[in-house]
Amino acid sequence: MKNEEFVKEITNIDEDFAQWYTDICIKAELADYTASKGFVAIRPYGYAIYENISNYEDKEFKKLGVQNVTMPLLIPESLLNKEKDHVEGFAPEVAWVTQGGEEELEERLCVRPTSEVIFSTMYAKWLKSWRDLPFLYNQWGSVVRWEKETRPFLRTREFFWHEGHTIHETAEEAKDFCIKILDIYTDVIENLLAIPVIRGKKTDSEKFAGAVSTFTVETLMRDGKALQAGTSHYLGDNFSKAFNITFQDREGKQAYPHYTTWATTSRLIGAIIMAHGDDRGLKLPPRIAPIQVVIVPISQEKEEVLEKANVIKERLSSNFKVKLDDRDNYTAGYKFNYWEMKGVPVRLEIGPKDIEKGEAILVRRDTFEKKSVKLENLEKELQELMDKIHQNMFDTCLKRQEEKTTVVHNMDELVKTIDENQGYLKAMWCGSAECEEKIKNLTAVKSRCIPFEEEHLDDKCVCCGGPAKHMVVWGRQY
Amino acid sequence: MKNEEFVKEITNIDEDFAQWYTDICIKAELADYTASKGFVAIRPYGYAIYENISNYEDKEFKKLGVQNVTMPLLIPESLLNKEKDHVEGFAPEVAWVTQGGEEELEERLCVRPTSEVIFSTMYAKWLKSWRDLPFLYNQWGSVVRWEKETRPFLRTREFFWHEGHTIHETAEEAKDFCIKILDIYTDVIENLLAIPVIRGKKTDSEKFAGAVSTFTVETLMRDGKALQAGTSHYLGDNFSKAFNITFQDREGKQAYPHYTTWATTSRLIGAIIMAHGDDRGLKLPPRIAPIQVVIVPISQEKEEVLEKANVIKERLSSNFKVKLDDRDNYTAGYKFNYWEMKGVPVRLEIGPKDIEKGEAILVRRDTFEKKSVKLENLEKELQELMDKIHQNMFDTCLKRQEEKTTVVHNMDELVKTIDENQGYLKAMWCGSAECEEKIKNLTAVKSRCIPFEEEHLDDKCVCCGGPAKHMVVWGRQY
Repeated sequence: MKNEEFVKEITNIDEDFAQWYTDICIKAELADYTASKGFVAIRPYGYAIYENISNYEDKEFKKLGVQNVTMPLLIPESLLNKEKDHVEGFAPEVAWVTQGGEEELEERLCVRPTSEVIFSTMYAKWLKSWRDLPFLYNQWGSVVRWEKETRPFLRTREFFWHEGHTIHETAEEAKDFCIKILDIYTDVIENLLAIPVIRGKKTDSEKFAGAVSTFTVETLMRDGKALQAGTSHYLGDNFSKAFNITFQDREGKQAYPHYTTWATTSRLIGAIIMAHGDDRGLKLPPRIAPIQVVIVPISQEKEEVLEKANVIKERLSSNFKVKLDDRDNYTAGYKFNYWEMKGVPVRLEIGPKDIEKGEAILVRRDTFEKKSVKLENLEKELQELMDKIHQNMFDTCLKRQEEKTTVVHNMDELVKTIDENQGYLKAMWCGSAECEEKIKNLTAVKSRCIPFEEEHLDDKCVCCGGPAKHMVVWGRQY
Repeated sequence: MKNEEFVKEITNIDEDFAQWYTDICIKAELADYTASKGFVAIRPYGYAIYENISNYEDKEFKKLGVQNVTMPLLIPESLLNKEKDHVEGFAPEVAWVTQGGEEELEERLCVRPTSEVIFSTMYAKWLKSWRDLPFLYNQWGSVVRWEKETRPFLRTREFFWHEGHTIHETAEEAKDFCIKILDIYTDVIENLLAIPVIRGKKTDSEKFAGAVSTFTVETLMRDGKALQAGTSHYLGDNFSKAFNITFQDREGKQAYPHYTTWATTSRLIGAIIMAHGDDRGLKLPPRIAPIQVVIVPISQEKEEVLEKANVIKERLSSNFKVKLDDRDNYTAGYKFNYWEMKGVPVRLEIGPKDIEKGEAILVRRDTFEKKSVKLENLEKELQELMDKIHQNMFDTCLKRQEEKTTVVHNMDELVKTIDENQGYLKAMWCGSAECEEKIKNLTAVKSRCIPFEEEHLDDKCVCCGGPAKHMVVWGRQY
């Protein structure tokens, strides 16, 4: 009885995907609503996932020579106003500090929505010569954007991220660096989170406020909506000129450096939930799961069971993240459901009969497949299982992505497909912002990106029928 | 010539300690002023020190079962007002957000000065039974306090810290946990930062706003002023009652949990600068130095020198944090001064003659002692040197602390000593806030703490002559 009730607490995934998502966030104890409207608290289980992603990213950035710094949380309004496109993009959604202590401020300060302008002022101060370049700096922290509608991880007034800000001697070096960062994001999302990505360039309408080019990794969720998972922007010398960042180049002349900025955010947790989850709850990719193996003792009141379970836990802890659920006020059945809902990749069951046979039972979260395993082989079996589960989760997403990708040649096909199948639409595009705008207004479908690997589908723009310039992947988005 | 000028950029430490401090922050590239008044940017070299400290602390907290979370940056005013002592302590120094996007807020939000109130609302929501306890949560981030006078690391409008917030079933368990945290702080400050601490309890006048007891680790700077390096507070059930955090206890009754909160901050970087620095600049304790060994090639234009230096760098990099300074536009002499100023614990010099002999020269930053070392022994020699340097830096601080600690029995002695010798004063105290206040007003000396190891110096209060209750360590503070 207790078990069934437990699963009933989660909305059916096919009935109401949005409510299912919120249920998972709350019931799996990833996040919770707070007294600050639009802000969530990230709970230990959610934050541990974020830490696992962040620690990996931080190591990869450092391999490229990136160094961490901190810049002020609050930014004077006059600074934000310096780069025209940038302020237009961000000013409408910032929070303003107007009072500090007892004093009314002469100039109001915004809580940073992003930190290009403050990095720029410091770069202008620090940069002298081409010998100083590149500056490869990154900041871990949070930013605030005054969103009207919020959802845990996907859109909140405060979110967590890293923001990289680099300046380079040449445009080519800067653009190359953007791609190196995109490679790290691809690695993280595919090889850690088990979600396939499409890599590409944003159209001008969809690029970052102040950027020359925005590169992106796009992912597809279970419901067929797209989620932008990470971006890397080439800003050219827009900010260098607006903030007078200059250096003496190799010929002794003053020159402007080329700026890049890039980020992934805590919304990656949202991507994990929506790419992999099912009716039983969360399903965590093994490589970022805070608990990889949960040990559930069977008949734990019987002699030796807990003792043996503890020995196994200690033994496995040097290779895996292991939790022993020895609570004596819940049944084993309740615990099965509980840890399935929390998305733990492997359950290890051990009871008196298993102990007699020198075995344990391993149960996969992704397929629910069970297997009896000799205790002496546990490490080897578990390592293989982790890789298998990862691969299966990735393949499942990729298959779904393929099923939900449709080539369309005209607006009728586009409208029909998006209503019937959601997903990615591949279509040719003439390159005009007007056609993009028209598609968006008609269908709520946006261009996701011009993929690095373009295909030739047709000669004509899906919208206006004019000569096609690019293949674009389109979709509705989170 | 170039070398001398370089050192001249730093104010003489004995002439103007405050200016020397600022010079080190800026010239050693630890931090810099920003366009946001009272906020600094922490540069890569400064942030790497903070990371080394934080990563160590984070591991130690996790060994105690502490888990990381995030709570909102912005807190509604009504929440801040709920605990009387707390709001009195913090309200005068918070920054207020009054506008979000285009809308004027109905209730203003403060940028968190600390997060007790928001943790409390969540604990009230999450806690049900004694079985859930303890909650051992910590948050890494920054907070804002509207300081009027600011100095890099020591007092800035935004500072970086961790803030631990735990709740426990019993008062005893909570108090024990406070001490476990204080043990970690002691370990970090003595064994990583090489600064001796005095451990003790704050007097009621000096404790945290809302606390029952504040435990502290106090350190002494080179100029004889004290710096509070870390605190751990037992809040009793003050916040539990104010925020209605309750649980069903083992007898089935509703009970209030006992709350602790604790922090060290980025001001520890200030402590490192002021405890160890000298006329040549920064002096970094080896265990937290971002660069432990800097290799300076001699006559690097000669064949084989750079090649050999690179081989050594690669070799040592598996055991130490190594930097090779192969800049071709600076002399070796300039580099010596540069890296001394940056406080790198050991310089490794290698030139054509050393290569011939199969040797390198190691130079200690703390004593400037030089030693020729066979290349095959480098790892062993360096490891020993790191430990020796650490120990010598710690001993030097301890010796200074002993020299600058004076027992005083009356106000005349107290006034005279603080003017002549600064430092710690040990004196008996009757326990009254009036005497503390009088001493503070007269001499700007505050009680640092009642040490855990009290001595009996006298029977009478240093101020009023009444019966003494405690021995107190006093001092002027940062």
